[in-house]
Amino acid sequence: MRLARAWLTRAFEPGSAAVHDFVAVHGPVTAVRLLLAGQAPAEIATTSRSWPSWRQAELDVDLAAAAGARLVIPEDPDWPHHPLQPLAAATAAGRPDLAPPLALWIRGDWPLTEALARCVCLTGSRAATGYGQQVAADLGYGLAGAGWTVVAGAAYGIDGAAHRGALAAGGVTAAVLAGGVDRPYPSGHTALIERIAADGLLVSEAPPGSHPTRRRFLQRGRLCAGLSAGTVVVEAGARSSALATAGHARQLGRACLAVPGPVTSIVAAGTHLLLREQRARLVTCLEHVLADLDPTPEAGPAPAGPDGTGRLDPTGRRVLAAIPDRGASTPDRIAAQTGVPVLDVLRSLPALEHAGLVEPTGHGWRLRPPAGGG
Amino acid sequence: MRLARAWLTRAFEPGSAAVHDFVAVHGPVTAVRLLLAGQAPAEIATTSRSWPSWRQAELDVDLAAAAGARLVIPEDPDWPHHPLQPLAAATAAGRPDLAPPLALWIRGDWPLTEALARCVCLTGSRAATGYGQQVAADLGYGLAGAGWTVVAGAAYGIDGAAHRGALAAGGVTAAVLAGGVDRPYPSGHTALIERIAADGLLVSEAPPGSHPTRRRFLQRGRLCAGLSAGTVVVEAGARSSALATAGHARQLGRACLAVPGPVTSIVAAGTHLLLREQRARLVTCLEHVLADLDPTPEAGPAPAGPDGTGRLDPTGRRVLAAIPDRGASTPDRIAAQTGVPVLDVLRSLPALEHAGLVEPTGHGWRLRPPAGGG
Repeated sequence: MRLARAWLTRAFEPGSAAVHDFVAVHGPVTAVRLLLAGQAPAEIATTSRSWPSWRQAELDVDLAAAAGARLVIPEDPDWPHHPLQPLAAATAAGRPDLAPPLALWIRGDWPLTEALARCVCLTGSRAATGYGQQVAADLGYGLAGAGWTVVAGAAYGIDGAAHRGALAAGGVTAAVLAGGVDRPYPSGHTALIERIAADGLLVSEAPPGSHPTRRRFLQRGRLCAGLSAGTVVVEAGARSSALATAGHARQLGRACLAVPGPVTSIVAAGTHLLLREQRARLVTCLEHVLADLDPTPEAGPAPAGPDGTGRLDPTGRRVLAAIPDRGASTPDRIAAQTGVPVLDVLRSLPALEHAGLVEPTGHGWRLRPPAGGG
Repeated sequence: MRLARAWLTRAFEPGSAAVHDFVAVHGPVTAVRLLLAGQAPAEIATTSRSWPSWRQAELDVDLAAAAGARLVIPEDPDWPHHPLQPLAAATAAGRPDLAPPLALWIRGDWPLTEALARCVCLTGSRAATGYGQQVAADLGYGLAGAGWTVVAGAAYGIDGAAHRGALAAGGVTAAVLAGGVDRPYPSGHTALIERIAADGLLVSEAPPGSHPTRRRFLQRGRLCAGLSAGTVVVEAGARSSALATAGHARQLGRACLAVPGPVTSIVAAGTHLLLREQRARLVTCLEHVLADLDPTPEAGPAPAGPDGTGRLDPTGRRVLAAIPDRGASTPDRIAAQTGVPVLDVLRSLPALEHAGLVEPTGHGWRLRPPAGGG
């Protein structure tokens, strides 16, 4: 299953809802088998000209291991379901470009569910001013000191300052890379990225050896915003990709914040645009950011009613009721039985799993045995 | 009547709705007679310990003439009814502290209805930075060049920079003073204020010789905001009186705008507060301000339907219907006849006058003869 996920990250660019849904319906192993057999839907098959070989996937896993990296997959207990839930919800709601990752290539010793439970994304211009870098470093320091994981893209300018601030505070910082975790980019940040790997986390959707591309940079922004309870734009020009990241945060219902600057500064034009159009809230200091973050309320399983169903929405309750007491059911069967659209079933199951109520099997989903009884 | 208004500006601090309404009901001459006879309502009578003499009012008018100043009163054709209408409306709506001026002491040759038809207020810290003063001067220059009258308080810092920018553009600027128009304050701005008197307008609610006081500074802010289609806060500390002026603009339904600055600047704390709490809209340049100003739509009589009644609200139409075809009626009589509260009648009449439908007589209000027929 892990190898299938590795293969999928090699086969597909990140962020495709069609691919995500296909894999969710069939499971990764069957999905890869169908793809290799030429039996995948055309919309997915045509996104890749030629499929990688299984051997390539094995090689990627070996390369990762040699670089001190690992592949974390949604089927792992360490998968950050909770932070990524808004991406899953956006995908289910019809956003084709905001799909959760198929898997994450990771360097760094932190368990993901722990390190990514409370993330805040700092983003901004590579051509940042001294003022902007100072603000980013101060916010990175303060947020890390307050127990937040500082997420950024390891780029020059604002990203680098944010990571450095978090490292200086002895906190956790996660660099989401557009290329492979074994390929520090930009090269001028090699030492910084190595330090983040040692003290924090490197995260990428692309397999080892991958080059960063324009598309991957944009998808990286979606992942930074998606992992984070809020995104703070410190400095951004009028066409900065940081504005796209801020847009993703907003689309995902996360806090979208921006730091003002002098109106005479070119790299304040983008943040001022966000603020003028009320697409971001103005923050000037750590206290503002902390006040505006909507912290991921719980890192572990959600507190629930005595039977764990107290927090479920109506769809979730219908899906749960359709899972048999013995054996397992598939999303298709649950959909047919309940009348809930299959995509909504697929959206509900991870939440039910997260609540400790169901668990995946090789062939579908079953009720999870009560603690101590399994 | 002019002398009575002069006396009233000597007797009362500006901005009192109770005084305004009392004068509106009785007319200025009767109002003064009642006050001197001790027959005024207690709430008004107790606002002044001892009344000025008539001789004092005559002296004030003489002093003004000697200083090249004049008193413009609401009964004058040159009274800026239209810009001041929101203050009248706020007063009628029960805001006790936003009354229109009882009269205006003026230096400068501009007709008020012309000079004040399109005003924008620039306000901010006396302890402004070079950055703030540059922004204020640029905006003052640009706004004046675009035909807007730049209204400010002639104070050090932002005010002075705004006036200077407008003067440099060869445009009109109006300095609203908290003390008398014959008393340049602050003294370090004497030359600037004299230049504004020569090229623009000095405006005060206080008679000649008056000292600026804290209360008058605050009421000055209300008048600056009240005259202006919008107020732009350029720099303001967290407790700056510019924030009160911005608040008045908002209460009056006028555009409330703020220029951001570095978060490290103390005099950006107030503007950032306004922006963070969405009590002002962010502007960075002249184009933003021009886009956000809601220009006083017409300087002259409002375009109306064929009979001029198209734009009247229901109250206005009822009041208009109660004015006889021949002769005049008083607000009290109109109120009794229509059932409209007298304060609402008083609020409607200036709008009807402005629309060219009615006109005041010595004893009340009458229908205005059609153009060419009078």
